[in-house]
Amino acid sequence: MTSVIPSPELIASFIDIVGADYAVTGAGEIAPYLVESRGLYRGTTPLVLKPGSVDEVSRILRLATDTLTAIVPQGGNTGHVAGGVPREGKADVILSLERLNRIREIDPVGNVIVADAGCILADIQGAADDVDRLFPLSLGSEGSARIGGNLSTNAGGTAVLAYGNMRQLCLGLEVVLPTGEVWEGLRRLKKDNTGYDLRDLFIGAEGTLGVITGAVLRLFPKPRGRQVAFAGLASVENALALFDLASSLCGPALTGFELMPRLGIEFTTRHIPGVRDPLDSIHSWYALVDVSTFDSAESADRMVQSLLEAGIRDGLIENAVVAQSEAQSEALWHMRESISPAQKPEGGSIKHDVSVPVSSIPAFMAEADAAVLKAIPGARICAFGHMGDGNIHYNISQPVGADKSVFLDRWREMNAIVHAVVLKYDGSISAEHGIGQLKRDELAAVRSPIEIELMRRIKHAFDPAGIMNPDKVLRAD
Amino acid sequence: MTSVIPSPELIASFIDIVGADYAVTGAGEIAPYLVESRGLYRGTTPLVLKPGSVDEVSRILRLATDTLTAIVPQGGNTGHVAGGVPREGKADVILSLERLNRIREIDPVGNVIVADAGCILADIQGAADDVDRLFPLSLGSEGSARIGGNLSTNAGGTAVLAYGNMRQLCLGLEVVLPTGEVWEGLRRLKKDNTGYDLRDLFIGAEGTLGVITGAVLRLFPKPRGRQVAFAGLASVENALALFDLASSLCGPALTGFELMPRLGIEFTTRHIPGVRDPLDSIHSWYALVDVSTFDSAESADRMVQSLLEAGIRDGLIENAVVAQSEAQSEALWHMRESISPAQKPEGGSIKHDVSVPVSSIPAFMAEADAAVLKAIPGARICAFGHMGDGNIHYNISQPVGADKSVFLDRWREMNAIVHAVVLKYDGSISAEHGIGQLKRDELAAVRSPIEIELMRRIKHAFDPAGIMNPDKVLRAD
Repeated sequence: MTSVIPSPELIASFIDIVGADYAVTGAGEIAPYLVESRGLYRGTTPLVLKPGSVDEVSRILRLATDTLTAIVPQGGNTGHVAGGVPREGKADVILSLERLNRIREIDPVGNVIVADAGCILADIQGAADDVDRLFPLSLGSEGSARIGGNLSTNAGGTAVLAYGNMRQLCLGLEVVLPTGEVWEGLRRLKKDNTGYDLRDLFIGAEGTLGVITGAVLRLFPKPRGRQVAFAGLASVENALALFDLASSLCGPALTGFELMPRLGIEFTTRHIPGVRDPLDSIHSWYALVDVSTFDSAESADRMVQSLLEAGIRDGLIENAVVAQSEAQSEALWHMRESISPAQKPEGGSIKHDVSVPVSSIPAFMAEADAAVLKAIPGARICAFGHMGDGNIHYNISQPVGADKSVFLDRWREMNAIVHAVVLKYDGSISAEHGIGQLKRDELAAVRSPIEIELMRRIKHAFDPAGIMNPDKVLRAD
Repeated sequence: MTSVIPSPELIASFIDIVGADYAVTGAGEIAPYLVESRGLYRGTTPLVLKPGSVDEVSRILRLATDTLTAIVPQGGNTGHVAGGVPREGKADVILSLERLNRIREIDPVGNVIVADAGCILADIQGAADDVDRLFPLSLGSEGSARIGGNLSTNAGGTAVLAYGNMRQLCLGLEVVLPTGEVWEGLRRLKKDNTGYDLRDLFIGAEGTLGVITGAVLRLFPKPRGRQVAFAGLASVENALALFDLASSLCGPALTGFELMPRLGIEFTTRHIPGVRDPLDSIHSWYALVDVSTFDSAESADRMVQSLLEAGIRDGLIENAVVAQSEAQSEALWHMRESISPAQKPEGGSIKHDVSVPVSSIPAFMAEADAAVLKAIPGARICAFGHMGDGNIHYNISQPVGADKSVFLDRWREMNAIVHAVVLKYDGSISAEHGIGQLKRDELAAVRSPIEIELMRRIKHAFDPAGIMNPDKVLRAD
């Protein structure tokens, strides 16, 4: 019902709301709004609207509901599941939040920042830094991702272990509902038990229930001490044991525990300028450990030192280095964050963003590896990620010399193989990237009918006309 | 539509599901299920059912939906808002979770415990302790409160600052829906972005959307160090500044920061056996500071020492003691937790469980005090609580010598006065106790019509027959 091509009159009415300067209709200018970050999906649209106020967003949605026009909210378009791009062959109108990019207020005493949903994540981090506070959400695309998108996908990233996902970093929201009504939920309260949790329903809903236009985000004091270590390990089992040791010795001071395979070191040292292997020995696996302390800089050093000593004593660590400067810490993280881009020059890469219970990671990895190599002998498995969260980016690079497009044609087949093992360990087929279009039908297949039915009822309760980002998360009726 | 008195045949059908041994119909045996913890509400019921399995819960709800019988889920019946007791003058059937009290699994490596909803909170804490882990939820009624109720009210307590509310402590749920269908969401994942956040919708829903029958709860490593200090302060402003200092020096090691007025010390030393004023000087306000560390016992001592030195240097602390033993730490916490019971012998007490942004606490307190004393000169304000969470239990004891029932008759009037100040500071009228019947109509009055409408739509989407705990949170249609 929302696939009718809008008439020229209707398009003119939408343009009237934002003004001609802020509406895009030319194919060339529209192009970057249509393709998701990995190029797997390319949608179509007659119109991109760039509202400059919450009121304009409200008027756009009211008109959309009245005319059954599908609306796709878009932030920085950095998502990985085609949740923020329009459908192919339909006439979804894109509502870009890019002009709603004002920091409304920053309160270092109350430890909150109130911002428009179109603010770029790095700008939020920077504004916090300017008042000697930390906004901990950190991820590869932070220079272009916008916080409305981070909220709509409940973004994770590298600091989840200590600070949680976006859901834990947000105190309140302002949301424009499909009817144009505004839910004013911009609260700054740490505790508020007054009815159903609307906030957490909009967070992670991928723009299918309404458009987030503003948020109250939490700030934190800055740590005084930080230390990063990099350890070579013999196995994933040892990485799990080391994580357990680190949790027990560091508690919440453990702000990062990332797992990397040897292949990640090879790919990054080969393809990413400036990346060097930090160790002079070769290991099957690596852990990047990040510790933050508040009482003093020395206590982070002391903590990492004790951890490495205990890890070596227990036979878990084969070799390790400790960063000697902030620059060295950054270099270690840069290597970790370069694993994704470093896969590109190695040919096709089939990606998975999965999670399993932390204690099941070794068994999951062994079983998934066996299944993948049985299907594609010579496939190069580059599974890395946020071990402390149970979140593995289980990526598979094509065999050396294989045909890229033949390999990539097996995307869905390999997904099925890997996700079957994920489900065996009661894991998730999307740990942090969301569902969008990419995993929509798979979600319906792996979750119980009643769970999908409850989601459908929520969708219908919030968006009975079905105009909000249709066919994302759930297939439109 | 759910107020029809069940026929004897229908009651017999309900009893058949659980067996006669586990159904209560005699007035004497029923009595304790009818009154909420503070005695403000007394409901009526023809029947208490004590199912012994998830399947029995499912059959009860299916029959209830088919016959439009109202069901009230009840845990330990320790709630403060009459959310777990039946309505007065209706025929709600009580579904007690008390027999579903089995710990299904405990996994110290994966740091989870899977338990029936009827487990008593203290038993969960104890089971965690047995495997050298911490389950951090801690509150006054932990010896009788059941975790299904803790989940349904998103319980807070004394460790929220470091570990969060129940919502942050729960990874997955098993919920029986009003139709009897079971939502199997017992996941153990730290990250899982797959569609709408059903879990957080059931948490805090006070049993109005379904019956929680099981949960996966998070465990944590036990801290190696703990130190508790008690400081006398001149003002609430100084308490806020000290909290800020403590956050900056201790980061997440700060596990408790409680505020108490002089009156709290007077009431507890007067009425609670064994409680003594820890300081030999008199102060207007007091802070209880609790610090936990993982690397060593000494680092907690060191941290508290630095904090007290900095607090004295900055003129924030007038006098302070540090606990010299675990017993002294417990004694300090015991004093803090005895403030509520110590108000009883002082006559009537009108209670508020409110939150405001942490930085607004001093202004809120000054304004609320002035308004209360204007209305009731001589009223003794005993406002205490979880300052670090912005959560104040703003209680008002009657003037000395006043008539208790005349004073208590002003409950709603004083609520209106205090909550008006709360709302001025964008606060919450229920920080941690929930809505139930006590604050239901007030919620509808203080929240926007669209917010109440969204909640109604959720209620209708999950419970179209309106059988689940009707008239709690929202007024039944």
